[in-house]
Amino acid sequence: MSDFVTIGVDLGGTKMAGAIVEADGSIRTESKVPRPTDQRGMTEGPLDLAAELMTDDVAAIGIGVAGLVRGDGTMVWGPNVPGEHIPFGELARRRFGVPVVVDNDANLAALGEARVGAAAGYRHSIMITLGTGIGGGLILDGELYRGSSFAGEIGHITVDVGGPTCTCGQRGCWETFASGRRLDQIARDVAAHEPSGLVATLAAGEVPNGTHITAAALEGDPTACRQLAEMGTWLGIGIANLIAILDPERIVIGGAVSGAGDLLLEPARRAVADSLEGSSHRPEISIVGAELGAAAGMIGAALAARDLVTGAIDHG
Amino acid sequence: MSDFVTIGVDLGGTKMAGAIVEADGSIRTESKVPRPTDQRGMTEGPLDLAAELMTDDVAAIGIGVAGLVRGDGTMVWGPNVPGEHIPFGELARRRFGVPVVVDNDANLAALGEARVGAAAGYRHSIMITLGTGIGGGLILDGELYRGSSFAGEIGHITVDVGGPTCTCGQRGCWETFASGRRLDQIARDVAAHEPSGLVATLAAGEVPNGTHITAAALEGDPTACRQLAEMGTWLGIGIANLIAILDPERIVIGGAVSGAGDLLLEPARRAVADSLEGSSHRPEISIVGAELGAAAGMIGAALAARDLVTGAIDHG
Repeated sequence: MSDFVTIGVDLGGTKMAGAIVEADGSIRTESKVPRPTDQRGMTEGPLDLAAELMTDDVAAIGIGVAGLVRGDGTMVWGPNVPGEHIPFGELARRRFGVPVVVDNDANLAALGEARVGAAAGYRHSIMITLGTGIGGGLILDGELYRGSSFAGEIGHITVDVGGPTCTCGQRGCWETFASGRRLDQIARDVAAHEPSGLVATLAAGEVPNGTHITAAALEGDPTACRQLAEMGTWLGIGIANLIAILDPERIVIGGAVSGAGDLLLEPARRAVADSLEGSSHRPEISIVGAELGAAAGMIGAALAARDLVTGAIDHG
Repeated sequence: MSDFVTIGVDLGGTKMAGAIVEADGSIRTESKVPRPTDQRGMTEGPLDLAAELMTDDVAAIGIGVAGLVRGDGTMVWGPNVPGEHIPFGELARRRFGVPVVVDNDANLAALGEARVGAAAGYRHSIMITLGTGIGGGLILDGELYRGSSFAGEIGHITVDVGGPTCTCGQRGCWETFASGRRLDQIARDVAAHEPSGLVATLAAGEVPNGTHITAAALEGDPTACRQLAEMGTWLGIGIANLIAILDPERIVIGGAVSGAGDLLLEPARRAVADSLEGSSHRPEISIVGAELGAAAGMIGAALAARDLVTGAIDHG
């Protein structure tokens, strides 16, 4: 099979998207729908999306899911999605008769950015996706690192023992301080506190959310800028933990919240310098925005699927 | 060179030890001295110790140091040792004319435990050394993982943003809650608070330290047991962070403080179950005591040196 494409599907915390992807990571066609809200939709939705995209030259399918994914392609559970023990790998292989790889969505976004995005050419990189929660993917020695199965659940490291309760049930998880859900909460608080402020004005009667904070900050609103800076500081505290443990060459920040750009990343860089052990004795580590945007997950899923066909990796 | 031995030197937070080590990790001869206290002693001490051990069949030398060690064998800095920018690799190669590998002490202890100790046969393992501080070494995909240079500085992840100041200058580092230094402090507090208690009695007029807490706990003293349980809980909170990020198959706990055994490890296991995201959906990860004791670092150093000779790895 000398000329083929693969399908990548990305089932995230709030939306589901799929694409036919070429060998160089470029997208031929894509489709986006809301994330299914129950076990049945979670089970059938991603496969229906793949079916809709299917063409004769599709040689393999990759599926990324915002949850814990076992090596056999079963999503065991996820703190930000409904459904448990969904055997995506088995179901997709049976339905389409092509090789299928299933992995955590942020793992596959990391793979996408490492192959054709902001971490291309780096041997050790970490992708942090600021979506509903914080997802993560580790590229170590040039390969996606999975550990036993579930590596990269970086949003749920404890950074503040007495901190707020997380959707995962634990307390003080990193993502309770820096994530889309947290930014939505901040937007509601800011709008309630400053009903004639820019955040409330931009919300225009709708429930304020994180996009209103980001938009207000990009227009220079001091309250919104301060809130993003504070979130950036929390982001940096967690990044410092990852650097202490893994010392990568590059950190890539993606996900919807990263649209705030340097309003978020500059405070994060400062917090890393302030809270990383021996930071003055270390070379500076580059912390940059993602390049593939919302498409990183499905591009990474499709490229992982391509690896199945070329034999670069074996996911069964 | 068909039959040879290597020297391993371990320069830790409080002591320095060296040994001639056989291919199977067994120790032929060893020597132990206090850790040097200034830049000159730090620079010459480990080499003098190696010189004292040197025999005709020594083919390479490995040196582990409690600090940040660069790929060229220079110790850049360490929070728990004096001295900076000591080019151990260059100095030892010049003095002895054999291949030399220098690495972080906990990295080499992890390598020792992974080759001939408690993590032998596991593909992904993490060694946690509870010495003066918390050291760490990551064995990922069967290899010691160094990242850019300094991976495994796990003692300095922030677990409590507003927590106590650490020797590294930051706040709320994991090792401020679980380490030999912390246990020494607890011993002094306990003895001051209960002057006729078992901890004070065991100290017998000397400054109470962590060994008195452990000894009292092993005799069933309730206060000492409670203190070790609390430290075990902190230990587990950090371990849960490492599992969330790296999902290893096995965690090995070594260092002097781990002498408390299950009095420390059982609370740690419970804390992992309580604070790891999705722990009920994950297979149980084994958390066990180290097998090589205080010798892990020098055995690992010697085995890393052996790799230089056999060509298994190349550290320049």
